[in-house]
Amino acid sequence: MTITAETLDRSRVLVAPALRQAVERLDPFTRLVASYHFGWSDEHGKPIEANPGKTLRPALALLAAEAVAGKPEPALPGAVAVELVHNFSLLHDDLMDRDTERRHRKTVWAVWGDATAVLAGDALLSLAHEVLAEDDSPYGQEAGQALAIATRELIRGQVLDLAFERRDDVTLDECLDMAGGKTGALLAVSAAIGAILVGAPQPVVSALSRFGAELGMAFQLVDDLLGIWGSPAVTGKPVFSDLVARKKTLPVTWSLDHGGLAGRELAAWLARDGNPTDEELRYAAELIERSGGRDWALREARERIGLAEQALDDAGLDAIVRNRLGEVARFVIERQA
Amino acid sequence: MTITAETLDRSRVLVAPALRQAVERLDPFTRLVASYHFGWSDEHGKPIEANPGKTLRPALALLAAEAVAGKPEPALPGAVAVELVHNFSLLHDDLMDRDTERRHRKTVWAVWGDATAVLAGDALLSLAHEVLAEDDSPYGQEAGQALAIATRELIRGQVLDLAFERRDDVTLDECLDMAGGKTGALLAVSAAIGAILVGAPQPVVSALSRFGAELGMAFQLVDDLLGIWGSPAVTGKPVFSDLVARKKTLPVTWSLDHGGLAGRELAAWLARDGNPTDEELRYAAELIERSGGRDWALREARERIGLAEQALDDAGLDAIVRNRLGEVARFVIERQA
Repeated sequence: MTITAETLDRSRVLVAPALRQAVERLDPFTRLVASYHFGWSDEHGKPIEANPGKTLRPALALLAAEAVAGKPEPALPGAVAVELVHNFSLLHDDLMDRDTERRHRKTVWAVWGDATAVLAGDALLSLAHEVLAEDDSPYGQEAGQALAIATRELIRGQVLDLAFERRDDVTLDECLDMAGGKTGALLAVSAAIGAILVGAPQPVVSALSRFGAELGMAFQLVDDLLGIWGSPAVTGKPVFSDLVARKKTLPVTWSLDHGGLAGRELAAWLARDGNPTDEELRYAAELIERSGGRDWALREARERIGLAEQALDDAGLDAIVRNRLGEVARFVIERQA
Repeated sequence: MTITAETLDRSRVLVAPALRQAVERLDPFTRLVASYHFGWSDEHGKPIEANPGKTLRPALALLAAEAVAGKPEPALPGAVAVELVHNFSLLHDDLMDRDTERRHRKTVWAVWGDATAVLAGDALLSLAHEVLAEDDSPYGQEAGQALAIATRELIRGQVLDLAFERRDDVTLDECLDMAGGKTGALLAVSAAIGAILVGAPQPVVSALSRFGAELGMAFQLVDDLLGIWGSPAVTGKPVFSDLVARKKTLPVTWSLDHGGLAGRELAAWLARDGNPTDEELRYAAELIERSGGRDWALREARERIGLAEQALDDAGLDAIVRNRLGEVARFVIERQA
């Protein structure tokens, strides 16, 4: 087992019972829906053994606390809260994007309908604040504030994402800004909240927030690469899935902005209607590659990881735990392989 | 101007700028959507003079603080937060219920689509916690906790409401429980949060919470009466609107449970399909009246107001402000006239 797999595992062991305990408070139906969504049960409530997901966000919260104060436990409410907010956003995004599958299982709206997905998401967002508000450390309120601000950013990112679908002149800067909101903000607060909950000084909180934000951007870049070139076994989605939807992801937008002739061919391809054939998909992927979008995204992801590591160095953390955070960051781009 | 109209007006003057300031933080599109929803602008952002609504919930928060501590201002973040949560629930409920109009204007999902209504609601819920979390009194965290628990109840109520639509054996007790969640919980926390934010002792907070819960139940009963017998000028909805939808509201459920022969006739009527004619609507309304459902709901609403006033007496409040809270409570059932 790699250090990172071990780290993520350890965090799951700590977080899972607290997360289940929080979900237990929901009304019976919403509890069932949440259990299904988290992969703890089937849609009838029968316990199952599903892939628990990476739970990257709670791991960041716990590691940040450990790196600052030598123990992860005080960050537990924060770890639970960021995982709840992440899953609130998955429930609502799957509905808005009309995605019918997540991790090889039907999404909540696809099983129970729109209203259930709306309410289950609402319940998890509210529960995140409930968990933080009942923390009796002196830092629960500051943690709640950071989480609310990050959620505002997350929503801004999703608003932009939906608006960009209806535009064909989205610039790379706009796309990076959107990804910063949609992916960066919650990873930033995941790392920061761990530091907040152990009373770390503001510069340390800021450095960990920067670490999470850069990691989030690398994460999104890799996700976008996997959405085009990832193998279905890794991604759980069909090959070229983002191209099928003609999504203007970061490597695509870079190609449109900087990709010369191949970029212009790509723009023409994206403007077409109808379902692309396999051959057309391969052609589009090749255009992104020829115009340099794939290389740029990979380079940019590595650079962001470098900036993330730099932020860790600035935070003055315990060396051993700092290295584990660095491992987690590098793991994010190694998913690529 | 009645005392109550004056009280509600005074509260609006205090709350409106703080509410607008909070909404200002949202991304430009969500800010536009929220401005439209609150009746501050048309859908292009042009300022308008719309009916600002009753803003009953912020008024309760401010009056509670004044009744306990002599001044409303410390409750301002709470007043803004409960109004934000109320409007989060309106945005999502209108979407789930597919209501196309609210206060004679198109609902947000009807103007901009489902995703926008989901995201705007999400943004207001999160903003409510942001506003409370940045309050620098020692009570912001406790207020956030109370608000999150009330929101969980609110969601439970809406889950039940949707489930009841698919059942024809809903009992009066179940229906009262649902109304307690859907309407009572937020009115309860509206009154309680004002007391929490001035550091009132627990028995005072509890008494004000009971006051709000009973008031909420009276409010729902009157709303249900207006949904059947209210004049369109008062309700902004067509006459018999709840009967058109064959909604199992509180007076209807009472009639089904206790209404003898007329109640059984009503059950048969509710089980019919298709759009009822005007004559059929008058017939159904008459069945509810004959079986005693209308009288019961009116009696029950008055009783709840009595219990609400009793809770006020238990709280040991400043007499003048206590009377203003009592006035507001009685005003709720006088809407009936």
